[in-house]
Amino acid sequence: MRSFFEYNWQVRDDWLEWCEQISTKELLKPRTGGPGSILYTLFHVIEVEYSWIKAIRGKEDEVIPFEQYDTLEQLKKLSNDCRAEIMKFIEKGLFGNKNESVYVSWENQSYTKDEILHHLIAHEIHHIGQLSVWARELEFKPVSAHFIGRTEHGRS
Amino acid sequence: MRSFFEYNWQVRDDWLEWCEQISTKELLKPRTGGPGSILYTLFHVIEVEYSWIKAIRGKEDEVIPFEQYDTLEQLKKLSNDCRAEIMKFIEKGLFGNKNESVYVSWENQSYTKDEILHHLIAHEIHHIGQLSVWARELEFKPVSAHFIGRTEHGRS
Repeated sequence: MRSFFEYNWQVRDDWLEWCEQISTKELLKPRTGGPGSILYTLFHVIEVEYSWIKAIRGKEDEVIPFEQYDTLEQLKKLSNDCRAEIMKFIEKGLFGNKNESVYVSWENQSYTKDEILHHLIAHEIHHIGQLSVWARELEFKPVSAHFIGRTEHGRS
Repeated sequence: MRSFFEYNWQVRDDWLEWCEQISTKELLKPRTGGPGSILYTLFHVIEVEYSWIKAIRGKEDEVIPFEQYDTLEQLKKLSNDCRAEIMKFIEKGLFGNKNESVYVSWENQSYTKDEILHHLIAHEIHHIGQLSVWARELEFKPVSAHFIGRTEHGRS
């Protein structure tokens, strides 16, 4: 479980670096098939991870406004700040007691911690897959998505 | 680990059903940003999962030719046949002894079983993310990727 989070964070960092070569206009351009622009998609995975983990922690939900994080620099800072907070919680035992029930206010429903952690892992990998299509459509090489080695493989 | 495999298989089945509404021409059309066409991408996740799990089982690698599975019916059969074989292996303990070292012939390298299982899970979710972009580009609603509930959520 933890290794999937570390994988997602590494891939996310690589995408945030990848964005450095793309113009702000292209980064903010609405795109077909994902939550919005490239920057908004990255914002979305950060925000969703942070919100669900806040729910696990029993903290109140707060909506993070994209308008405050719509530059690459601000988004990198948001990713780092959210991750630092999540890391502290990991050290306190995020990955323990997986059958614990968690109330999720925006769905008015409860899930097990285990379900939420699975959801978050799949959620980020899925959206990163969308970024990889847009990257090729922009004629840029996408970040490697390989869990093993993180380099190109013959068979993938 | 097992629940991610079950999630991927369910999502894959849903995509194979989703394909029923798309013309053969569109299903086989080369697309930007993934391994190839929609059908080839689905073939690719089936073939990669099967090959790496064969490596875990210590079986010799065999290349499955796409040309034999380039219709929806043949691909569904391939997915079901490979899965049935993998299920048998799961019952014999696929998810045990995760630190076991596995030799992978096409890379002439060894990985732990745990690394390979993580790789396969992320691999399929990533490519499914690519399908979701192409679906919207074709103006069709993609299959839900949600691990929780498998329905649309406000926050995702």
